[in-house]
Amino acid sequence: MIKAGIIGATGYTGAELVRMLSAHPDVELTVITSRQYKGTKISDVYPALAGRSELVCEAYDPETFSERVDIAFTALPHKIPMGIVPELLERGVRVVDLSADFRFRNVTAYEAWYQPHTAPELSEHAVYGLCELYHDEIRKARVVGNPGCYPTTILLALVPLLRAGIIKAEGIVSDSKSGVSGAGRGLSLGAHFCEANESFKPYKVEGHRHRPEIEEVLSLAHGADMEITFIPHLLPMTRGMLSTIYCTLVDGKTEEDARKALEAAYSERPFVRLREKGKMPDILHVQHTNFCDIGLSSDPRNGRLVVVSAIDNLVKGASGQAIQNMNIMAGLDERAGLF
Amino acid sequence: MIKAGIIGATGYTGAELVRMLSAHPDVELTVITSRQYKGTKISDVYPALAGRSELVCEAYDPETFSERVDIAFTALPHKIPMGIVPELLERGVRVVDLSADFRFRNVTAYEAWYQPHTAPELSEHAVYGLCELYHDEIRKARVVGNPGCYPTTILLALVPLLRAGIIKAEGIVSDSKSGVSGAGRGLSLGAHFCEANESFKPYKVEGHRHRPEIEEVLSLAHGADMEITFIPHLLPMTRGMLSTIYCTLVDGKTEEDARKALEAAYSERPFVRLREKGKMPDILHVQHTNFCDIGLSSDPRNGRLVVVSAIDNLVKGASGQAIQNMNIMAGLDERAGLF
Amino acid sequence: MIKAGIIGATGYTGAELVRMLSAHPDVELTVITSRQYKGTKISDVYPALAGRSELVCEAYDPETFSERVDIAFTALPHKIPMGIVPELLERGVRVVDLSADFRFRNVTAYEAWYQPHTAPELSEHAVYGLCELYHDEIRKARVVGNPGCYPTTILLALVPLLRAGIIKAEGIVSDSKSGVSGAGRGLSLGAHFCEANESFKPYKVEGHRHRPEIEEVLSLAHGADMEITFIPHLLPMTRGMLSTIYCTLVDGKTEEDARKALEAAYSERPFVRLREKGKMPDILHVQHTNFCDIGLSSDPRNGRLVVVSAIDNLVKGASGQAIQNMNIMAGLDERAGLF
Amino acid sequence: MIKAGIIGATGYTGAELVRMLSAHPDVELTVITSRQYKGTKISDVYPALAGRSELVCEAYDPETFSERVDIAFTALPHKIPMGIVPELLERGVRVVDLSADFRFRNVTAYEAWYQPHTAPELSEHAVYGLCELYHDEIRKARVVGNPGCYPTTILLALVPLLRAGIIKAEGIVSDSKSGVSGAGRGLSLGAHFCEANESFKPYKVEGHRHRPEIEEVLSLAHGADMEITFIPHLLPMTRGMLSTIYCTLVDGKTEEDARKALEAAYSERPFVRLREKGKMPDILHVQHTNFCDIGLSSDPRNGRLVVVSAIDNLVKGASGQAIQNMNIMAGLDERAGLF
Repeated sequence: MIKAGIIGATGYTGAELVRMLSAHPDVELTVITSRQYKGTKISDVYPALAGRSELVCEAYDPETFSERVDIAFTALPHKIPMGIVPELLERGVRVVDLSADFRFRNVTAYEAWYQPHTAPELSEHAVYGLCELYHDEIRKARVVGNPGCYPTTILLALVPLLRAGIIKAEGIVSDSKSGVSGAGRGLSLGAHFCEANESFKPYKVEGHRHRPEIEEVLSLAHGADMEITFIPHLLPMTRGMLSTIYCTLVDGKTEEDARKALEAAYSERPFVRLREKGKMPDILHVQHTNFCDIGLSSDPRNGRLVVVSAIDNLVKGASGQAIQNMNIMAGLDERAGLF
Repeated sequence: MIKAGIIGATGYTGAELVRMLSAHPDVELTVITSRQYKGTKISDVYPALAGRSELVCEAYDPETFSERVDIAFTALPHKIPMGIVPELLERGVRVVDLSADFRFRNVTAYEAWYQPHTAPELSEHAVYGLCELYHDEIRKARVVGNPGCYPTTILLALVPLLRAGIIKAEGIVSDSKSGVSGAGRGLSLGAHFCEANESFKPYKVEGHRHRPEIEEVLSLAHGADMEITFIPHLLPMTRGMLSTIYCTLVDGKTEEDARKALEAAYSERPFVRLREKGKMPDILHVQHTNFCDIGLSSDPRNGRLVVVSAIDNLVKGASGQAIQNMNIMAGLDERAGLF
Repeated sequence: MIKAGIIGATGYTGAELVRMLSAHPDVELTVITSRQYKGTKISDVYPALAGRSELVCEAYDPETFSERVDIAFTALPHKIPMGIVPELLERGVRVVDLSADFRFRNVTAYEAWYQPHTAPELSEHAVYGLCELYHDEIRKARVVGNPGCYPTTILLALVPLLRAGIIKAEGIVSDSKSGVSGAGRGLSLGAHFCEANESFKPYKVEGHRHRPEIEEVLSLAHGADMEITFIPHLLPMTRGMLSTIYCTLVDGKTEEDARKALEAAYSERPFVRLREKGKMPDILHVQHTNFCDIGLSSDPRNGRLVVVSAIDNLVKGASGQAIQNMNIMAGLDERAGLF
Repeated sequence: MIKAGIIGATGYTGAELVRMLSAHPDVELTVITSRQYKGTKISDVYPALAGRSELVCEAYDPETFSERVDIAFTALPHKIPMGIVPELLERGVRVVDLSADFRFRNVTAYEAWYQPHTAPELSEHAVYGLCELYHDEIRKARVVGNPGCYPTTILLALVPLLRAGIIKAEGIVSDSKSGVSGAGRGLSLGAHFCEANESFKPYKVEGHRHRPEIEEVLSLAHGADMEITFIPHLLPMTRGMLSTIYCTLVDGKTEEDARKALEAAYSERPFVRLREKGKMPDILHVQHTNFCDIGLSSDPRNGRLVVVSAIDNLVKGASGQAIQNMNIMAGLDERAGLF
């Protein structure tokens, strides 16, 4: 049994981790922490967890926390993890961090969109936890930066196509849509029911912090710096995320070539499902699962390739992928606790 | 043209008043106030109002406000209106108050559920603005206490039946359900999208402040004190309210008698629609309207009569009824600006 | 490993069975049938099931079906199972039937609300599959009539209170609300998105077929015939069901007595969660789970007791409870595959 | 008073016409027809219309229909109007057709995507009813082809930019999203509540029939044939439509130039609202209105211009624009009955 702990268990991704880890056949969830709910049973914060977890939220203390866990999930706001992770690593705890703090190889990009990085030396060694693309690195990692939700949809769709030279690096557009749970449990007018229900709108069109994360990984796949146009939108639903990605086929390449490149990349990966020709993903199909569904279409008139990918933002886009990372790090079946 | 002003224009009921009064054929909306949004165009607070109102929110000043209006709508939190209304009346402005401050004849009941009343002498003269039942009093009123949303659904359904001696006063249950807009624009976890969407629950089961309001008016209709069981619930939708009311027929009375009593009460009232036998109200039918739909059913096995009534909580349950009250006070067609 | 089969796998409850049984640690789902989708992969009917089940829908043949299963789930429209179950039993297959065909001890009541019963002799031996209340009978049953969704919410709430003499049998009202999935996958105007979304309404107020089912079991618990008032409503959401039940305390009995009776009944039952005093169930807490949450409130003014219970209509109200029944019949941990 | 009639009054756009025309200050709605609901009161088909219209659906008869109306709205499935409109015109009735039958100047394009055209000679004289762009032609038109909903969002956003030479004609992508009411009242699995709720997906990615309509009008604005990539998606909400359009600025042109071109085009048009810099449309702001909101953003890194436009698909995207067309044809204030 792997002993796991969650630091920051009372946000939506933290609670989702509690739920899934409590039912994981190879894991014992030994400790959960929360500053705000210290001393409160997690099932009093989330009554849905009653009968599934009896854990009480504790204050975080590196000493006592580390003694009880093999692996830690940090489900905290950006900036806090980079202050905590070093001491965990020192104590021999491996870490899956759900914030942005360890997603970037290029610390400068992180600092341009977030804040000064206080553990840049760790960033170099951290592994980007996109399981399907960095499987081998994750296995050996001591700290994994769990990918953002939008990047997960876009990178799983595009990286194999760029690596295989199927699509051009120029002019890529991702029109992405997220359910409201992506905004977390913190109150805001934008997530107030009467403002989000029966509503639909783009947001952060001048620049969302997931764009540099996407561009860094795409540039690595492409072998040269590249940029994309990325516009996020807010859907009137709780869970789910879908990106409709517009790109251009390299001369001589076809939709069929794109399909083969994706098949080759994911034939052994249990959580990517390629939709057959003529069929497209629907958020409904991936909700409450760790799957990423991908579909393809092209316009013979102009060489435009449309790639659509869908996930559950709280599962494959956050907590499910974090557990998938843990499974890989621990040498378990990648699917353990996720089916 | 009647000159109208709104004090507290930036909550959901205030904004709904702005929308409807801006299109009212007999009204000029001359002034709107907001403490929080002083100096801001209402269309910057509610972009939906762009192109419909050019008004800018002002700070409230009794002097300059009163000079510009014949009638004032106070769309403020409970307690504030009773401090403001006296000075408006002194300056000759008639008032429709959307808070609870002037709904009670029995100040003691108000004080038990809200706070000490600072203008009890006005409460005596204020008229309860349930248009269909207090039409004549409203016409002459200087201050009208606009009814709560739940009371509107329950009282329109029951008062004619009690007055006509069709139902017993004992054992009445109202199982009532409201859309989330009833909770207003203030942020709360209960109205956070991910908590309210795909959710349904009772709330304030130990006692909701609308219950004494309901019981006071029912007791007047009954001619003696009476009480009801009233359980409100929160629906995963923006607008609408429906009460399913369970009562017992007086011996010898029938569903048909109940129907006739309601027909007699509302045949001349344009905003109550009695559903024909076998058909029931649906919130969908009343959304964005000032209608109250009522349906009836009975169980021959036990004399149980079920009365169902539905409204849009922001219209007939608040701002629409407020305008209906203004229409009556000003001698206009009751329907002006509401169809 | 128990070998299970599903007859009628492509409705919502059938698909939910496929999903859950495919992940059940002690079950091998060997065969699924569908008249309409014969020859089609279940994952082509429900793309959400891709990567989880590779099964292809077959035509139902009693011979070949029976050879491959120990236990059959019949997820078919009422009337069809009573024609099929006898031949399954003859071949030694135990059955959990999700229709109404085997829910009634009193065949006359079934026939009054459904149609003539063609296997009345089986009805006598069938067990009503409300797991928490008929655990011992279910263990030995050859055919279990899986309860209706509304009855599950109402009976779990009331039976212990009636058995313990806490509440009166007279005057009970259940105001019940269901998500739209309760109506199944068949197309109808009432389940058309634009008619159900942002809508709320009572339906079948003149008599829903779940009422006699409820009354039969309540009468057994009470020890004498009794009736209730039951009004179902349709919620604008996919999954979930909540009943707000109004009853009257027997003189001298209290809310605390009611709480104790429920605690006594369910302290050993993993799927009923009693909410603590002052807290109420929310459909959000039980979605995608097999839990039934129950809360209590009372009005000291009049001895009214309000009992609220909530389930996921597709899980505890159908497929989850069916699997719970199978677990009990097979001597497995009741919770297997359901946590 | 203008006498108006609706042929096909019981679909969603027909019912919306009934609602709006019944409240229109300058119109008398004299006749409505329906094949399916002949002899039924419209308020029995749509209880929401009770108290607003007493009309009974009639069978359509050209003779008696024409005698009673000055202008006809045909709210029928494609193909039927082209059989009916000629006889209406002969009898002196002007027509606003809500189908696609008279939207195309190029009959060949219509026939490629729909069916053979039986009144091609009329198509030449019909006017494309995009009010803001073809105001003068509409004024004199005898038959107006009311635009499709998607084309309305895309053309209002792009035509002024193409006419002013601000954007390139190549490489335009419109990622468009529609509420479910766009699919009409006919039953289908895709519009079944449980399939559309909490769901989001692209559809008809291989080619939607609105694309040739869009391309014809864009090509006219551009002065040469052009094509776009257009991917429609289905939103889990009833009403509303938003297009996020990606295009490229002509060298030397800026977002500010685009803004000025749109301002110049719409400064006198009451129903287009340009959002100020940094703000974007939200479907919530246009629901139940005839407004089209447009917002702009650009990426200085690559000259990409993003134009976002939002409407209510049943109002500006169908019935509201049809009434706006009627207002223009009849010489009324364009806004009559629409504010």
